[in-house]
Amino acid sequence: MQPSLSSQSSVMDWIGETISKMYSEIVSWRRDFHQYPEPGWCEYRTSAKIANLLESWGWKIFLGEEVTAREARMGVPSIEVLERCEERARLEGVSEVCIEKMKGGQTGVIAEWKTKREGPVFVFRFDIDSNELKENTSTDHIPVQIGFSSKHEDCMHACGHDGHTAMGLAVAKWISCNQNLISLKGTIRLIFQPAEEGCRGARAIVEKGWLDDADYFLSGHIGFRSFDLEEIVLNTTGFLATTKWDATFTGQAAHAGGEPEQGKNALLAASTAALNLHAISRHSQGASRVNVGKLIAGSGRNVIPSNAYMQIETRGETDEINQYASREVKRILEASAMMYGVNVRIEKVGEAGQAAGSLEFRELLADILKDVTGVTKLVPQTNLGASEDVTFMLKEVEKKGGKGLYILLGSPLRAMHHQSKFDFDENVLHKGAEAYIRTLIKVLGSRD
Amino acid sequence: MQPSLSSQSSVMDWIGETISKMYSEIVSWRRDFHQYPEPGWCEYRTSAKIANLLESWGWKIFLGEEVTAREARMGVPSIEVLERCEERARLEGVSEVCIEKMKGGQTGVIAEWKTKREGPVFVFRFDIDSNELKENTSTDHIPVQIGFSSKHEDCMHACGHDGHTAMGLAVAKWISCNQNLISLKGTIRLIFQPAEEGCRGARAIVEKGWLDDADYFLSGHIGFRSFDLEEIVLNTTGFLATTKWDATFTGQAAHAGGEPEQGKNALLAASTAALNLHAISRHSQGASRVNVGKLIAGSGRNVIPSNAYMQIETRGETDEINQYASREVKRILEASAMMYGVNVRIEKVGEAGQAAGSLEFRELLADILKDVTGVTKLVPQTNLGASEDVTFMLKEVEKKGGKGLYILLGSPLRAMHHQSKFDFDENVLHKGAEAYIRTLIKVLGSRD
Amino acid sequence: MQPSLSSQSSVMDWIGETISKMYSEIVSWRRDFHQYPEPGWCEYRTSAKIANLLESWGWKIFLGEEVTAREARMGVPSIEVLERCEERARLEGVSEVCIEKMKGGQTGVIAEWKTKREGPVFVFRFDIDSNELKENTSTDHIPVQIGFSSKHEDCMHACGHDGHTAMGLAVAKWISCNQNLISLKGTIRLIFQPAEEGCRGARAIVEKGWLDDADYFLSGHIGFRSFDLEEIVLNTTGFLATTKWDATFTGQAAHAGGEPEQGKNALLAASTAALNLHAISRHSQGASRVNVGKLIAGSGRNVIPSNAYMQIETRGETDEINQYASREVKRILEASAMMYGVNVRIEKVGEAGQAAGSLEFRELLADILKDVTGVTKLVPQTNLGASEDVTFMLKEVEKKGGKGLYILLGSPLRAMHHQSKFDFDENVLHKGAEAYIRTLIKVLGSRD
Amino acid sequence: MQPSLSSQSSVMDWIGETISKMYSEIVSWRRDFHQYPEPGWCEYRTSAKIANLLESWGWKIFLGEEVTAREARMGVPSIEVLERCEERARLEGVSEVCIEKMKGGQTGVIAEWKTKREGPVFVFRFDIDSNELKENTSTDHIPVQIGFSSKHEDCMHACGHDGHTAMGLAVAKWISCNQNLISLKGTIRLIFQPAEEGCRGARAIVEKGWLDDADYFLSGHIGFRSFDLEEIVLNTTGFLATTKWDATFTGQAAHAGGEPEQGKNALLAASTAALNLHAISRHSQGASRVNVGKLIAGSGRNVIPSNAYMQIETRGETDEINQYASREVKRILEASAMMYGVNVRIEKVGEAGQAAGSLEFRELLADILKDVTGVTKLVPQTNLGASEDVTFMLKEVEKKGGKGLYILLGSPLRAMHHQSKFDFDENVLHKGAEAYIRTLIKVLGSRD
Repeated sequence: MQPSLSSQSSVMDWIGETISKMYSEIVSWRRDFHQYPEPGWCEYRTSAKIANLLESWGWKIFLGEEVTAREARMGVPSIEVLERCEERARLEGVSEVCIEKMKGGQTGVIAEWKTKREGPVFVFRFDIDSNELKENTSTDHIPVQIGFSSKHEDCMHACGHDGHTAMGLAVAKWISCNQNLISLKGTIRLIFQPAEEGCRGARAIVEKGWLDDADYFLSGHIGFRSFDLEEIVLNTTGFLATTKWDATFTGQAAHAGGEPEQGKNALLAASTAALNLHAISRHSQGASRVNVGKLIAGSGRNVIPSNAYMQIETRGETDEINQYASREVKRILEASAMMYGVNVRIEKVGEAGQAAGSLEFRELLADILKDVTGVTKLVPQTNLGASEDVTFMLKEVEKKGGKGLYILLGSPLRAMHHQSKFDFDENVLHKGAEAYIRTLIKVLGSRD
Repeated sequence: MQPSLSSQSSVMDWIGETISKMYSEIVSWRRDFHQYPEPGWCEYRTSAKIANLLESWGWKIFLGEEVTAREARMGVPSIEVLERCEERARLEGVSEVCIEKMKGGQTGVIAEWKTKREGPVFVFRFDIDSNELKENTSTDHIPVQIGFSSKHEDCMHACGHDGHTAMGLAVAKWISCNQNLISLKGTIRLIFQPAEEGCRGARAIVEKGWLDDADYFLSGHIGFRSFDLEEIVLNTTGFLATTKWDATFTGQAAHAGGEPEQGKNALLAASTAALNLHAISRHSQGASRVNVGKLIAGSGRNVIPSNAYMQIETRGETDEINQYASREVKRILEASAMMYGVNVRIEKVGEAGQAAGSLEFRELLADILKDVTGVTKLVPQTNLGASEDVTFMLKEVEKKGGKGLYILLGSPLRAMHHQSKFDFDENVLHKGAEAYIRTLIKVLGSRD
Repeated sequence: MQPSLSSQSSVMDWIGETISKMYSEIVSWRRDFHQYPEPGWCEYRTSAKIANLLESWGWKIFLGEEVTAREARMGVPSIEVLERCEERARLEGVSEVCIEKMKGGQTGVIAEWKTKREGPVFVFRFDIDSNELKENTSTDHIPVQIGFSSKHEDCMHACGHDGHTAMGLAVAKWISCNQNLISLKGTIRLIFQPAEEGCRGARAIVEKGWLDDADYFLSGHIGFRSFDLEEIVLNTTGFLATTKWDATFTGQAAHAGGEPEQGKNALLAASTAALNLHAISRHSQGASRVNVGKLIAGSGRNVIPSNAYMQIETRGETDEINQYASREVKRILEASAMMYGVNVRIEKVGEAGQAAGSLEFRELLADILKDVTGVTKLVPQTNLGASEDVTFMLKEVEKKGGKGLYILLGSPLRAMHHQSKFDFDENVLHKGAEAYIRTLIKVLGSRD
Repeated sequence: MQPSLSSQSSVMDWIGETISKMYSEIVSWRRDFHQYPEPGWCEYRTSAKIANLLESWGWKIFLGEEVTAREARMGVPSIEVLERCEERARLEGVSEVCIEKMKGGQTGVIAEWKTKREGPVFVFRFDIDSNELKENTSTDHIPVQIGFSSKHEDCMHACGHDGHTAMGLAVAKWISCNQNLISLKGTIRLIFQPAEEGCRGARAIVEKGWLDDADYFLSGHIGFRSFDLEEIVLNTTGFLATTKWDATFTGQAAHAGGEPEQGKNALLAASTAALNLHAISRHSQGASRVNVGKLIAGSGRNVIPSNAYMQIETRGETDEINQYASREVKRILEASAMMYGVNVRIEKVGEAGQAAGSLEFRELLADILKDVTGVTKLVPQTNLGASEDVTFMLKEVEKKGGKGLYILLGSPLRAMHHQSKFDFDENVLHKGAEAYIRTLIKVLGSRD
């Protein structure tokens, strides 16, 4: 028998307990996602599963072109890769209708729950994509032990997005199950964002307008540094603005012995680009970074190389510094192509900016989250020193007058993010779900 | 009924006719090899087929460690690649015994036929490996039309070695069939050389001693430039000395945003190497070449690259010029590694030198080959302007006092060597086999 | 009639007035130094003039080898340059005895005044060298207008050291003139340091032991940014640690047309060094800088260049970061030499570190300097963002338990430091002298 | 009493003797020029002396704008340099009128002698400029011993042009003195060409039309390799086509510590240019060369360098190869500027092509020169393997149907051309003058 609730505070007392009862289901979702990791813009199975569950719980679902602005998506894989992933999703049981909607990499899900009362719009964002990484296979890796390690070759959830997605489902199901017991006002929107890795997906959602009316925005990340299970960081600062670039040089092949002067050497264009990119001047106004992370060039030892492909990223302590570095990158790539008489195609495949959370919202959160089960320490803010495209959303929300925060959900980690032995303590899932739901009830609760 | 031969000259008259009768078999061998191309040190099926046929024709066969000096082989693929090829050969019917002998890439076959009379040693060399190239699939490509195009992914006989091998078999079978009709003296040795592409295989055969006692040495190549079916080039000059290098840089990965200074950047080491290698000074004593044909580096956009792999080649109009360039290459690679505090492993994976044919033997050949069916023009010599490791054999033969030649067997070509539409006129097979046999009979014939 | 002083405070009242009376003499000193600028280690005339004046005022003088540790001097010009400067000094009236003492660039002066009472050692440091820069000749440049612009070609006091030196003389003369009126305890030491530009001179003085027993250390700089005449900055932070390097590559010349391969190309070694030096990784722990400021290579268009000379500097927000960059520089220079088979001589020609002032001394100073005539604003500290080898002295003093500070004496500037129109308001000289003397009297005064 | 000449052959017999009598005068001219060497476009005193002498001997003289097409001159020094040289020439006695004519570097002299009989135009070319090189001062250098070494700092006749000029005067005076004894037809034209070093001057003379009507053209060079006094080379082949380039990069200075990102780094642009220029691909059709012979960049260690200056040359075995390399050079320089956002000014400062001599004229010469006193060996042709802008003239003559040759006048050398100890045996002057005069008499002689 459920308690009869006469006030919001009694709902609050009761949240921890109801979530506890969902715990094994949350874990099973997470482990399912972990077994079927899908990298950015390939989250066909992941999106379909999210959509099916949410629909069954009564949420209004948006898919495909409704979710992301097609042209604003960055770093979309080639048609061949997408089609291979679509085929795999079919074999894993995703319906043709569903795949048709997401065709060509329009993955991700938006879900909405409109209450009958007027009130604020509260938006959550959960990122759902995996890394492109081969999961560790040694038996001291818990997913191997328990048997839920990745079944997709060279893909792995090594950044905790499987957990983020599971927490999103937990929030959705809890609302659905407890709608009669709590009376909320306003609108709840859940963004299940594709392609966070490489900072490729958020912009396309923002441009579709999903953040335009957000009064509150909350997202978060599992793990990060040495924060423990009892800890939550209320606000993340020190996002490094970043841009991700792909450069493809195309020259002309020729026999290196017979007529080398007929070649247009794409490998040398790329090599000179790599060196000169790293020579971009330091900036006096703050930290900057440049990296050429990958370079693949040439076809054979005795052929003047006609092709070269590079992956580049810039970062800056401020948007301005990153923009400075980005301008340099473009000019240097074009000059390098000119140097060897080859062509270069430069593509922006990812981007994120600086952003700051709402200090007002942080104060509210400090008051709410102190009651989360097991939480003993709230860290006011921490410096990320990395890049996240949630910044597109935080900035949009702030611009439109809303309040946003990006929190960190402490958990012990077996290995750092993006490593093949990455794993978190699944108890963080309970903590996160509870934190999200408590905040939602507090903000949209209509009883007080 | 066969003619009763009373003199060598009547044998000679009769060679063309007997080979004509073998023509469809020679073509069928060539087409079989064309369907199952195997690149250097992976010629398991090819070697097994050669060995089986020759053995059945009464030749003494040498395989595996008897053929090549293990340590003198250059550019041997990784164990993984070799094992994949061994497995494929098994599936294609090669016996376990045979594979065991060639295990680890000791491919190639030597065959000997000792007559009962004392006399000179006459050595032929046929190269048997394929290129690593995807064969063209358009229907105007004859192997596609007729249905004998490559069944091995990304491998193709695009240099005519399938034809060379078929001619070698033709010589072997003809000897076997006609042994009673001709009386020869001395010894016939057939070298079916692996790994000519990249100049990787000849040295290991020379070091095993197979050329030590050669009085005569003959090898040749189908096609080359615009020579026609009626033409044979008696002597090839202008071999470019060459060395092939693989360089593997190993540094230290680090997060490009978080702690870039902890990285040791192998990609930049390779890039600076590429540029500075191409800046090796021209040589006043003749043509030189340097090419970095392939560069693969890095693991991900946001990681300081810890690995880089490069394929390099040098060439020189003389051995001295090539050695000059090679010394430069080694120093530059080491300096580039030092530049970024990384390690570099430099491996010589191929080599060939200059060589000159015997002018005396050329005169003899001029006299013999004018009688080859259909041949109307003998070109005294032509300048190759490319590299071939047959030069190791030519030099060894000359050093020991023997006489060697490398001939070119003219044929119309559909596309140049090493291109995906390469194809020759199969009539060259008849011409080549006849040329080889006529020379052999003339030199080892005991009747006159 | 001079006042009879019965207390230190009445001395203090009287300082401003006595210095005012010296003002035109201070200005004339400054203008004299301005007309005869001498760059680092060439301050023969400057040192001689300082020494002569101080000796005439009763100070004990140290010159030549007594001042600097010969081997610890950095960036000493060539013997030819030094001899030219010695000759010039002779022509300008410096005595042979004096030149003999400083021969080979052992310039600079130390002066001591021992009171008869026991007490602390108070050390002042004034830097005396000029820049290597052609002074602006336009008539709106005040030194041109008034007629005291540089008479030494390509040399100019463009950093205010002429003013620093004049203030040092003011302190010295004031002490001498007023010794009877004030009763001081302890020891006063004046360091007139050569070769501050390029951070070349301080270390050699420290190593000679002149800071070993310093209880108080005070130095300062005229100008800097937008501080005004009424302002004094009490403490300078944010010194960038720095190292200055000269690299000289020596290869082998050869005719570029006739036998280019005989050359060892020093120009290309230097070019590849320049690029790779600028590609030194950013450091995650703070700002870093690398600059190749000058490169001179080659002798003629048609000769493979056998010589190259480069000027390099590194900087770091911390000593550690600068040391990291310096290690990189050395390895890269050596690798670049190896790349082209040339030799490289690497010379450290300047160095400065981080340092922090004494907060305790700063508090004392705040109390004293508020009384300096015309001063209305004391800035507790400011971030220099540049390098100064006074840090060697500050660190040594701190290490030995003394208290040091480096102050900034605000002045309007006509152009920034190191520019050809640099000029300061000469009223800063009065302010600085008064600040120094007030501090000295306060610290060494024995009456209270 | 002079002989009465009744036939050309008797004139011939008599040439050697008459020239012998001029020998000490020829030597004194050579030594005078050697003492006052003037580099390209600065030959004010040299030209004036030539003009004055020739005029006094009755030749018609052309100076200044009559000699060279102003805009076709390449590599003209700056106005400052020219004016310094003009001033020096004034001090050395050159008349103001003469300097006025040559002002701005329009040096060189053309002299004509029209006979009264119709006949061919015979053109001689003597190059008159010096090298920019400090002459050796050791006492085993003959010009030092005898006392005629260079009085012009950093200039030296180290290529024998002093001798060429002296031979030109010898030809002129001989004609003048012996005009009554010989009866010639046609026209004699003497070109005293400025700025051969760096291949800068010939084109401007050709464009002025001085070769348009040449039926015969003869020029030559002293020394070269190991040819001896008894030898003359009748025809020079293997000229390397060449182009000389100056590149000046202009960026933006900035303080390397304070705001490095504000700089536009010209030094790095030049460094990357140097590396990539040397990486220009070898050409399969023949030898090529690229050299960056000089690089001067930057102003001070702590300033982002805003300026860089480079001297470059390309060479090719054929005009086409040199043009290929030149196109590459221009693109690479522009790309390098773009790489660092700086400007580049590219100036062609010298040029020479391939050329071939007339074989018909060579046969004639073989017949004539065998009679030159002391000559025992005529070498039909030799391969220069270097560049000379006489090729502009040879090509023009051939184009217009005339016959040209460039001969080599063997002489022992103390050191190779362009070295500070270069010196030739002055007996070559006699040989050369005799060779020129004999040819002239033979070709323009009207008696037979």
